[in-house]
Amino acid sequence: MRRLAIVGATGAVGQEFLAILRQRGLAGAEVKLLASARSAGRKVEGVAGPARVEALTSDSFTGVDLAFFSAGSAVSREFVPVARRAGALVIDNSSAFRLDPDVPLVIPEVNPQALQAEQGLIANPNCSAIILALVLWPLHCHWRARRVVVSTYQAVSGAGARALAELDEQTRDALEGRPLRPRVFPVPCAFNVFSHDSPVGPDGYNGEEAKIIAETRKIFGDRELLIAPTCIRVPVRRAHTETLAIEFERPVTPQQARAVLAAAPGVRVVDDPQRQRFPTPLEATGGDEVLVGRLRQDPSVAGDRGLQLMCCGDQLRKGAALNAIQIAELLQAIR
Amino acid sequence: MRRLAIVGATGAVGQEFLAILRQRGLAGAEVKLLASARSAGRKVEGVAGPARVEALTSDSFTGVDLAFFSAGSAVSREFVPVARRAGALVIDNSSAFRLDPDVPLVIPEVNPQALQAEQGLIANPNCSAIILALVLWPLHCHWRARRVVVSTYQAVSGAGARALAELDEQTRDALEGRPLRPRVFPVPCAFNVFSHDSPVGPDGYNGEEAKIIAETRKIFGDRELLIAPTCIRVPVRRAHTETLAIEFERPVTPQQARAVLAAAPGVRVVDDPQRQRFPTPLEATGGDEVLVGRLRQDPSVAGDRGLQLMCCGDQLRKGAALNAIQIAELLQAIR
Repeated sequence: MRRLAIVGATGAVGQEFLAILRQRGLAGAEVKLLASARSAGRKVEGVAGPARVEALTSDSFTGVDLAFFSAGSAVSREFVPVARRAGALVIDNSSAFRLDPDVPLVIPEVNPQALQAEQGLIANPNCSAIILALVLWPLHCHWRARRVVVSTYQAVSGAGARALAELDEQTRDALEGRPLRPRVFPVPCAFNVFSHDSPVGPDGYNGEEAKIIAETRKIFGDRELLIAPTCIRVPVRRAHTETLAIEFERPVTPQQARAVLAAAPGVRVVDDPQRQRFPTPLEATGGDEVLVGRLRQDPSVAGDRGLQLMCCGDQLRKGAALNAIQIAELLQAIR
Repeated sequence: MRRLAIVGATGAVGQEFLAILRQRGLAGAEVKLLASARSAGRKVEGVAGPARVEALTSDSFTGVDLAFFSAGSAVSREFVPVARRAGALVIDNSSAFRLDPDVPLVIPEVNPQALQAEQGLIANPNCSAIILALVLWPLHCHWRARRVVVSTYQAVSGAGARALAELDEQTRDALEGRPLRPRVFPVPCAFNVFSHDSPVGPDGYNGEEAKIIAETRKIFGDRELLIAPTCIRVPVRRAHTETLAIEFERPVTPQQARAVLAAAPGVRVVDDPQRQRFPTPLEATGGDEVLVGRLRQDPSVAGDRGLQLMCCGDQLRKGAALNAIQIAELLQAIR
């Protein structure tokens, strides 16, 4: 897989792809940067020095071995089939194909075996679902989670680079006592908290919550897993936080859970009550690991079958670009 | 009750007491402002024009009919007995006496009958517990809540005026790329989220979480009510947000719950999915009502017995000063 393409190279996730490729590389890769016509011609920091962004067209994928898509569902729906016809293997970060039964939805630490069934297109899960799954899966393997209540504290950069700029601008306005002018989000984001801005379905759950439920079940291969999510945005630049109340099938102690999580790949336990050291999004920012802490028995669940905890992960790295690159590395090893 | 005293008059809650007294008054009240020796002599905006703050001493309560305490547990433990011996009726906002079986713990909309047993001291509940109870109680009356998983998004001003100043200062530092220097909180609060800064007990629950559990049970008079809280601070100046997943004894629909909450005192339903209008702490700030929305059936609870929702309330008003003043008004009516 010598020639890569990144679709959405100028976006928040695209930029993170490039940063991670610079850090770990994919052996000998040449990288083609693709974006909308609006961004074409821009110079950005590529994998080896400055690179020119090209406009995405139906000819973009000639000679491309592997294409990462991170430009939204509409672009993926139109151009993923084009890339596949051109012979490229596709890893898609949008939600367009995630629930397609023919498309593996993969977190390498959780369900690498799903890659065996790939037919040229692999979907990268939703960022909140990845962070949840990385912590829940090791526990689920041993004690089988039956129900999880999860509340999220999501960074504004999950809504893209414009949202991040809006947070900074509005925060300056708030500090100076100027009126706040929401543009990207429906309400002010500075010094505020609000329900996730994805559309709300007829059942009352918003798009982000629906993704967490459906994608976690698919990744775990467990259609009976019950998840009750509430997705909320907070004035944090980067890295999502989640609080979990988990009901298991079998009894578990916090000590057992801590030992299992300490040994789990991609997870780091940060849990020191004496020093008030627990996971924070600031500490998770820029890192590859999901931080987990505040591990405690939940006495509201009978029979020692309940645990509560909190976790934080960088949603642009493990929640998006890093997970996709790990999928590519795994494919390179097994193909 | 003509002569009032406010202990902790210069603090965040004390200032809110004064603001509310100016708005609604307690008929013909004269107000004595008390604080630590450090603050004595300061002029603040009183009930009717500027007023001088006096140092709290053992002679402070002579001739005082009603004393509001909001200067922390240590001050309450020392001076509440002094005030009572001097003949003052005491409403205490600290946690010092809340779980004392001889002290009513009162939210006027929830358990006004508890005032019948008062012996000169009434405790004002924890702010997060009040906001939770105001929304949970009307639902509990009809469908009986058995278990509630609650995650909080708490404003920094809950930790006092210095914490609020730290948020503003750190936010300016973060925007200018300067290093963040935590002083009030154990970790940076600007553009960050962190576990509530109260001490963590041997069971893994922090002080704020323990208060929510014990106080809600006492207020509801229901020792079997199960509560699984996680308390988190967010970079919000004022007003706490909470997400709730409630399991009831009996089946309930979101429509039924919405109608009951729309008729509940002290609560306002803000729940418009089409316009993405849901409760936010910014909208709750400065108001008397707890806002509730995102009401939906929780399909992870069998038999239509689950609901999820979010709510926001101004923790310095209904969560502290307003609730205490409502208790005083009620006492004035029934004594």
